[in-house]
Amino acid sequence: MENENILSVTQPISIRFNEVDSMGVVWHGNYAIYLEDAREAFGAKYGLEYLMMYDEGYFEPIVELNLKYKQPLIYGMTAEVYIVYRPCEAAKIVFDYEIRDPETKTVYVTGHSVQVFMDKNTHQLVLNSPDFYEKWKQRWEVNL
Amino acid sequence: MENENILSVTQPISIRFNEVDSMGVVWHGNYAIYLEDAREAFGAKYGLEYLMMYDEGYFEPIVELNLKYKQPLIYGMTAEVYIVYRPCEAAKIVFDYEIRDPETKTVYVTGHSVQVFMDKNTHQLVLNSPDFYEKWKQRWEVNL
Amino acid sequence: MENENILSVTQPISIRFNEVDSMGVVWHGNYAIYLEDAREAFGAKYGLEYLMMYDEGYFEPIVELNLKYKQPLIYGMTAEVYIVYRPCEAAKIVFDYEIRDPETKTVYVTGHSVQVFMDKNTHQLVLNSPDFYEKWKQRWEVNL
Amino acid sequence: MENENILSVTQPISIRFNEVDSMGVVWHGNYAIYLEDAREAFGAKYGLEYLMMYDEGYFEPIVELNLKYKQPLIYGMTAEVYIVYRPCEAAKIVFDYEIRDPETKTVYVTGHSVQVFMDKNTHQLVLNSPDFYEKWKQRWEVNL
Repeated sequence: MENENILSVTQPISIRFNEVDSMGVVWHGNYAIYLEDAREAFGAKYGLEYLMMYDEGYFEPIVELNLKYKQPLIYGMTAEVYIVYRPCEAAKIVFDYEIRDPETKTVYVTGHSVQVFMDKNTHQLVLNSPDFYEKWKQRWEVNL
Repeated sequence: MENENILSVTQPISIRFNEVDSMGVVWHGNYAIYLEDAREAFGAKYGLEYLMMYDEGYFEPIVELNLKYKQPLIYGMTAEVYIVYRPCEAAKIVFDYEIRDPETKTVYVTGHSVQVFMDKNTHQLVLNSPDFYEKWKQRWEVNL
Repeated sequence: MENENILSVTQPISIRFNEVDSMGVVWHGNYAIYLEDAREAFGAKYGLEYLMMYDEGYFEPIVELNLKYKQPLIYGMTAEVYIVYRPCEAAKIVFDYEIRDPETKTVYVTGHSVQVFMDKNTHQLVLNSPDFYEKWKQRWEVNL
Repeated sequence: MENENILSVTQPISIRFNEVDSMGVVWHGNYAIYLEDAREAFGAKYGLEYLMMYDEGYFEPIVELNLKYKQPLIYGMTAEVYIVYRPCEAAKIVFDYEIRDPETKTVYVTGHSVQVFMDKNTHQLVLNSPDFYEKWKQRWEVNL
């Protein structure tokens, strides 16, 4: 798409001692934390916070999460998550991620997540994009 | 107290790989998980489950947690939590814990926790023991 | 493959209170714990434990993890992980997973993981299957 | 002690979605993470980092941890940890903590931790303060 805006955030992460396993590297399951940190930073920058969406009547569970681990993160290292919003027609929120070195941009881990909308009262899947989400997409010109 | 019943459970615990830190021992904060496992086993044995108490209108946040670490738990070890109910007059649930070797009973960690009752709707502290808790104490003869 | 053995384990899991998020369902990142529980049960059943492999000179980091969330796990539910070993020619350990209801076999989450071999001393990727792993595959007749 | 220096750090903490339980508040065991964040910030400010001490030949396991929970932290709130070094004669590192509101200084949680020195090779407790620690105490004038 010619005029597609790329919405992205680069979020520094700190590696906590308790996130490291007995091999001295971040335990693979803990990267989900870093991706969530990035989604929250994205929501704060672009006005798509969980609490706002909850007030609108929805929550957005993850339905798909893919991670590829290329190099381990070691305690004491600094890193950042680069999160990119991937526009799609369906009622979904799709992100790609790179966890990488802040200086060299060497990629440690890549990630991909898909979220759907659930009605907060009925806990039913919402098949059509909520109004607030359509408006949000128009505002940022990421509607397909 | 002469006739006091000792309510206790001995709950085996499995040490998960992700609970171990880069020193090869269980990360100190993760012992709170094991104590919670023991509280749940206690609740299941003596009819004091979180969900039941929630249905009664209460939840029971931890207001005090003390841990003393005597020997580290290492990945691959087996261990158990010995949890003992400590009767008290106040509207509190008090437990002592020993995390120990199932064979030798060598103690790795001791713990102590205090829980109070909160009204699930108002989120206010409940100063007097809820009826269901008084009945529970009478049933098990641990009322002071 | 006609004569391929299916190596699998069905491992019960307990959902801990601390694994549940504010929506009352297991936080998506915590499923990685359950998959690891299943891998450990698999290793114990078929003689492929982490500690044994470490003694052989290797550790086996996860290089790929895919999760699809179909239905949420709720605190108080019981569930099991069905883990299946997927034979492959490369120097990799590949598993598929289903997290499901023990009775109805309704699937909540599917998973897929890929592990490689690293030399425990040099921390270098091992491109050819270690001898112990080839022998293990022959023993269980899962060599391609 | 008249001339005692107060070594302290005020460290902002971010409450992650995955740290909150089904009651919508930070799960009590997760506060250990925040205290560790504060210890790391303290180490960075005053030159007492884990990695440095490891290079000196020691690690410093927690042997005692006490937490008192006065008010819950809720997802979306901001908070800070105020960590204070408590000088003592023994070969120990002792800290007190307050987790509090950055503006009003309302205290949510208080904490207390004690760490000892272990030889990184023998994993034996070190009864006398390591030289580097004595020098560190002199440098900051917190030796008793």
